[in-house]
Amino acid sequence: MTNSSEPQKSVSKAEWLEAAEKAKTNGMKFTSLSGRKLDICYTPEDVKEQNYYNEIGYPGEYPYTRGIHHNMYRGKIWTMRQFAGFGTPEDTNQRFKYLLEHGQTGLSTAFDLPTLMGWDSDAPLSEGEVGICGVAISSLQDMEILFDGIPLDKVSTSMTINSPAIMVYAFYLAVAEKQGVPFSKLRGTLQNDILKEYIAQKEYIYPPKESMRIITDMIEYSTKEVPQFNPVSVSGYHIREAGSTAAQELAFTLADGFAYIEHCIERGMNVDDFAPRISHFFNSHLDFFEEIAKFRAARRIYAKRMKNKYGAKNPKSWTLRFHTQTAGCSLTAQQPENNIVRTAIEALAAVLGGTQSLHTNSMDETLALPSDKAVKIALRTQQIIAYEHGVINVADPLGGSYYVEKLTDDIEAEAEKYFDLIDSQGGVIACIENGFFQREIADAAYRYQQELDKKEKIVVGVNDFVEEDEKIDIPILLISKEVEEKQVRRLRELKASRNADDVRNSLAELRKSAVDGTNLMPRVLDCARKYVTLGEMCGELKEVFGVYEEQAVF
Amino acid sequence: MTNSSEPQKSVSKAEWLEAAEKAKTNGMKFTSLSGRKLDICYTPEDVKEQNYYNEIGYPGEYPYTRGIHHNMYRGKIWTMRQFAGFGTPEDTNQRFKYLLEHGQTGLSTAFDLPTLMGWDSDAPLSEGEVGICGVAISSLQDMEILFDGIPLDKVSTSMTINSPAIMVYAFYLAVAEKQGVPFSKLRGTLQNDILKEYIAQKEYIYPPKESMRIITDMIEYSTKEVPQFNPVSVSGYHIREAGSTAAQELAFTLADGFAYIEHCIERGMNVDDFAPRISHFFNSHLDFFEEIAKFRAARRIYAKRMKNKYGAKNPKSWTLRFHTQTAGCSLTAQQPENNIVRTAIEALAAVLGGTQSLHTNSMDETLALPSDKAVKIALRTQQIIAYEHGVINVADPLGGSYYVEKLTDDIEAEAEKYFDLIDSQGGVIACIENGFFQREIADAAYRYQQELDKKEKIVVGVNDFVEEDEKIDIPILLISKEVEEKQVRRLRELKASRNADDVRNSLAELRKSAVDGTNLMPRVLDCARKYVTLGEMCGELKEVFGVYEEQAVF
Repeated sequence: MTNSSEPQKSVSKAEWLEAAEKAKTNGMKFTSLSGRKLDICYTPEDVKEQNYYNEIGYPGEYPYTRGIHHNMYRGKIWTMRQFAGFGTPEDTNQRFKYLLEHGQTGLSTAFDLPTLMGWDSDAPLSEGEVGICGVAISSLQDMEILFDGIPLDKVSTSMTINSPAIMVYAFYLAVAEKQGVPFSKLRGTLQNDILKEYIAQKEYIYPPKESMRIITDMIEYSTKEVPQFNPVSVSGYHIREAGSTAAQELAFTLADGFAYIEHCIERGMNVDDFAPRISHFFNSHLDFFEEIAKFRAARRIYAKRMKNKYGAKNPKSWTLRFHTQTAGCSLTAQQPENNIVRTAIEALAAVLGGTQSLHTNSMDETLALPSDKAVKIALRTQQIIAYEHGVINVADPLGGSYYVEKLTDDIEAEAEKYFDLIDSQGGVIACIENGFFQREIADAAYRYQQELDKKEKIVVGVNDFVEEDEKIDIPILLISKEVEEKQVRRLRELKASRNADDVRNSLAELRKSAVDGTNLMPRVLDCARKYVTLGEMCGELKEVFGVYEEQAVF
Repeated sequence: MTNSSEPQKSVSKAEWLEAAEKAKTNGMKFTSLSGRKLDICYTPEDVKEQNYYNEIGYPGEYPYTRGIHHNMYRGKIWTMRQFAGFGTPEDTNQRFKYLLEHGQTGLSTAFDLPTLMGWDSDAPLSEGEVGICGVAISSLQDMEILFDGIPLDKVSTSMTINSPAIMVYAFYLAVAEKQGVPFSKLRGTLQNDILKEYIAQKEYIYPPKESMRIITDMIEYSTKEVPQFNPVSVSGYHIREAGSTAAQELAFTLADGFAYIEHCIERGMNVDDFAPRISHFFNSHLDFFEEIAKFRAARRIYAKRMKNKYGAKNPKSWTLRFHTQTAGCSLTAQQPENNIVRTAIEALAAVLGGTQSLHTNSMDETLALPSDKAVKIALRTQQIIAYEHGVINVADPLGGSYYVEKLTDDIEAEAEKYFDLIDSQGGVIACIENGFFQREIADAAYRYQQELDKKEKIVVGVNDFVEEDEKIDIPILLISKEVEEKQVRRLRELKASRNADDVRNSLAELRKSAVDGTNLMPRVLDCARKYVTLGEMCGELKEVFGVYEEQAVF
């Protein structure tokens, strides 16, 4: 802070900050989206304790802070994977083909609420919900239509399904059999992360212990039989959408993942056999640098734990691979084109953070399911980032930034603190049952809501730059009532046409396996082949496992 | 490159690169948009020669690499300034008010081709061009209408005008007089950068020497009489749009600026009296990191030269302040909504590069002048970046990034090389006359065009991801033929109503000043007050100064 013309040779950051903090500000609150206090500027002093080789290193090298591949996107651009699903399997099949025609490189399936809850389309609870928020899948028949004309050995498919994931996985495998595609050639990902359902999304069926058994069965089966498929995608997305901070998203998600890993190790599996196929799924929210740092911290924490705590020897077990979705909760119903901007910048953060796969939200997702036009713009957003903005030329272009490296360190430290807190309460399931996660998230969401109410944080078009009498003039996708009628009719016809003995026997075998603790997966696959429905299988398992009810949280 | 679990303690970048370069690539060309060869990754070795305090330093401190203010956008968010102008002065006045109502924080005026060329609306050459690409301004009367109801002491106004800048400036000052606003309260910027017209934009009237005299007169007058106004905005935008590289844009623009500064010093002015009011204007193009590095290098080069070469003592003379416009040439007529994405990311680069003022292009600018809706989305883009993405919290968030710091160094070195080349040919005017700049830019543009033709570089919707039979379904702004009729009628009425002796005398005084070398500015202002038109004044000066014709360049 001097007008002298001599370069400042030795002003410390503290000295400089003391002066700089006296400068007038515009009166805004300069915390991160997660409420993190931030300095005006970061300097070499903020990272002077860091050892480059131990903490940052090269891309493709332990601890993978800079990315999991040596040449990152020069080798392979992330998979462009728009989450899609609505109406009948025919409708979604058409959308899948539309996306592939426009350059999408992977598929991602959204299921409707009945499917997510394990209800068939013709169940009483399903009424009014069939095909509304995703595609309706009740049996192998629906799955055959969904992937009609899409060779499963040519495309990787992600499926966002949790409690009934084992049935949907079985439907998928059975479609592959029908297409003559060997399981060894199947690539894709099941979400199948039940722990975050208890924490945030609340679409669970069975109690945690039984859910963990199903997932462990699936990982065990998949590791042996479907070696290129990711049987679990440990998901922070919904934790973040529920209002958590970036560090909470990171810590709770990784803790969930470590719980699956521990269950598999307890089952007697070798960590290096299954860990390379554990995938992750994060949110890319508004705060550009905080998100990039979160992704970098995630890789470093994961590599260290996998190597040091779980004794993994295979570098593929150390590398955290992740899908990213831009933050749905950051979009506004007002002035929907503004969402193109938010999504583009969130997508850029995901890419600079080194994601392997990306969904960019469509501008109309707060209003309805994405229209053809809106989803195409969202896909184009990814293509423009990949091909036009030069950001794929260099791996981890932000590496070394005093700010980003300090944030990466800080977020890692926060996550480690949460791991200790979780351990001290007896682990993830105990923390679900005592409401710890839910309380932490609720506190963070409340803090942010207060910032919005006080206008300390601005959302354009919502609490500032508001337009009165706005008319939405973008096309909106509507789901017709005929979808439900069609699905219900088809399902009833299917049920009437099946061999009743086959169905009964397969379900009995499933129940037996549920009781005796043998791996459920072959039994579910057998049911799928016999056109036993999702709802029938879930019903059978509910009778054995019971259903979970959350305790009230105070 | 090892599978061992030990951290890599001492692998050099060269060793790592040798191995990493063997990894398979996706076959694209990994150069920057400007054709720069890039490493797969940058590391501490790339910046090990850098002295933090001498080369990077703190924001608000010499050499200003990290920004010109101590607390950057925490103090004041950049000015949101959409370039606007079309039709009659009434039309543009309405657009100005629309933008201010939607949260724009400064004005920026686009003039039509006749105004830019010094032709009145009723001149034969103006036919068919009046109000088409900007607002038609032929006299003080038009300017009064343009700023009707907009108090000039409350808003800063940028005016993109070059050869006839002195007349337009005089109109503006005369409007201020009529509004009762003292010149000392006027804030804003004239583009008034004739050198880049000879280099790239080609809208010149007089020969270079005479143009330089006019600009020097204006700087001299403005420094004394309008102390808060920027009489020149040294502009790289058009050089870049003409196809230059980032380093050419930077080097040629700064060289132009130094030429103005040298002319003022030769006139006998003290550098610290006028330099604080020299402004700059850059393009923010597609290549995210190259652009950010360009902005950082610009500040460092400028600070060093102003201090060391021109002996400026006032830190305000060392700080390069700049307006940015996102790259018009990067937008596509195809799938216009994709332009929202490009513009958002280019705008983010400008902000991370520390711009003081920003125009974000509207998605429809390749099709027509921006519609109300399109310009609002462009403005919202800036507001979302400012208020939602957390990027204003920290000054120079990329500082320390190995990649960005190395690029900043490299671009600085390239610019210095260009300065030497320009000096060795006798300076900027000699290089304009011998075609050096034009050849360098043409070569760069040719190289890029070849990359597009060979699909080594992709433009989404143009040479890949093309949609057949696309229908443009966004609203388009059309300028009616009545605009020209209205302007011509008004101008004729004005000419008929003036005091003919006043007009004749004022023009005679202007000619006298042009001949005898006294400062032209008071004479132009006198003409303006008497409603002498732009075309009349330019005509008078053309007779004294002659007109410039470019030599063919081989």
